[in-house]
Amino acid sequence: MTSAENKCWGECMDVAIQIAHKAGKVVQEAVKQEKQVSSKSTPTDLVTEADQQVEDLIISTLKDKFPSHRFIGEESSAAGEKCILTDEPTWIIDPIDGTCNFVHSFPMVAVSIGFAVKKELEFGVIYHCFDGTLYTARRGHGAFCNGAPIQVSKERDISKALILTEIGAKRDPATLEIFLGNMQKLLSAPAHGVRIIGSSTLALCHIATGAAEAYYQYGLHCWDIAAAAVIIREAGGCVIDTSGGPLDLMSRRVVAAGSREMADYVVRQLQPISYERDDHDPDVLP
Amino acid sequence: MTSAENKCWGECMDVAIQIAHKAGKVVQEAVKQEKQVSSKSTPTDLVTEADQQVEDLIISTLKDKFPSHRFIGEESSAAGEKCILTDEPTWIIDPIDGTCNFVHSFPMVAVSIGFAVKKELEFGVIYHCFDGTLYTARRGHGAFCNGAPIQVSKERDISKALILTEIGAKRDPATLEIFLGNMQKLLSAPAHGVRIIGSSTLALCHIATGAAEAYYQYGLHCWDIAAAAVIIREAGGCVIDTSGGPLDLMSRRVVAAGSREMADYVVRQLQPISYERDDHDPDVLP
Repeated sequence: MTSAENKCWGECMDVAIQIAHKAGKVVQEAVKQEKQVSSKSTPTDLVTEADQQVEDLIISTLKDKFPSHRFIGEESSAAGEKCILTDEPTWIIDPIDGTCNFVHSFPMVAVSIGFAVKKELEFGVIYHCFDGTLYTARRGHGAFCNGAPIQVSKERDISKALILTEIGAKRDPATLEIFLGNMQKLLSAPAHGVRIIGSSTLALCHIATGAAEAYYQYGLHCWDIAAAAVIIREAGGCVIDTSGGPLDLMSRRVVAAGSREMADYVVRQLQPISYERDDHDPDVLP
Repeated sequence: MTSAENKCWGECMDVAIQIAHKAGKVVQEAVKQEKQVSSKSTPTDLVTEADQQVEDLIISTLKDKFPSHRFIGEESSAAGEKCILTDEPTWIIDPIDGTCNFVHSFPMVAVSIGFAVKKELEFGVIYHCFDGTLYTARRGHGAFCNGAPIQVSKERDISKALILTEIGAKRDPATLEIFLGNMQKLLSAPAHGVRIIGSSTLALCHIATGAAEAYYQYGLHCWDIAAAAVIIREAGGCVIDTSGGPLDLMSRRVVAAGSREMADYVVRQLQPISYERDDHDPDVLP
């Protein structure tokens, strides 16, 4: 990275923080309104007008300032835009993470903005729309919660660990059986507990602050992981594939933990659930 | 109820609100300290020095003001005091609901203070120790969140419902199988989602505000339900036994919902998990 680029990504991050705050306030207002809900891939994969409006707000603001950059957004992708990570500077955006929570005014909803260059995640900004907490990290510069440095948990004993996960959009009997079987494995370890809060992004932030030891999920998307992965890594944690290999942002699966040992333990418990990759080309049959 | 008693219970509630705030601040400070953790009924049934200190603070303050009243508290009961609800005015206290969350600084922890006279719940006060939200209700006077009236969700369609539950302390294979089987039933309905946040009391508050449609649990205690039951009922919701009959505060099981229809739907899905009653006499063999 040249020093000019280094400076530039810092400026991009400042813009990301401003726009995350602004988008978060729009979400806060939208929570109080009647929501127009429809579904996407499955009856439980929800979207609202607010998701689309907030994504438009974020992307149009960023396009104005950075016209040469690329954008991957949850709603643009749902609308058919290809979700391909190139070497170009790329913003990876979830306008409302926790849409089902948002629909119910269940108070765990976030705006997530990640940024990658040459396929490497450079910074992440996550804004908790209900309590206003801001999580930020830039590669090599540490991780912060409302400006205060954060650190992952160094607990390596599964019997003292709090584990987080999320239910994916698929609810067919075979998928549910594997999902619940994975939970059973962790509860039998016995972990202290398993939590499901309905926002992958905020759950991952809890790994970054050390409030939980590990997170795993099948069925999340690149926009759920991008910003949080930088924040966890800068807080001293590890973000890997459910196979134990390196994170594949487009693979729709992740294990994150405070330590490599804890991540590896979780990896060994999991039966995989298969989801179509984010960068699957809809024009090519699988 | 005489008008003098009516006035008196109102004064008791004012005291409860003051002491919930005070206890909540102690918990907020205790979160930042090193925790001394030990276990009670099972390795995952945790207690800390803070639980005991906060309960002592609450009960000693209340005993000073109301020397003739009775007290049921989570930690006093763990220490061997009998947990019997009589006709006398009785305070039912959970000093730190979500002890496992508290141990991890996972930000969902509450102080819960309920009050019953002639075995009828008169008021409930719940303080969210991380975000400072205060939930209050007095029988016949409505339910409030930070002083603003709250109302349950009137959604009656399970396929549009968000369901909350908690994992009990028992983690033997047979119990886990029933717990996960119940979750599978609700997820297959398909409900919008199932959430597990690690605090029964705060989960029940989410039913009162309408942020979720139903809650069910086996293995919780009277101090998890007492305050929340008044708040949900005053917000227009229903709190019943998992069999569909009236709530039995000592039975360690509950279904709460925005509507009777939603509660009945959940009741029909559940396989029971058996826990020893709160008012079980330890001197008598079961």
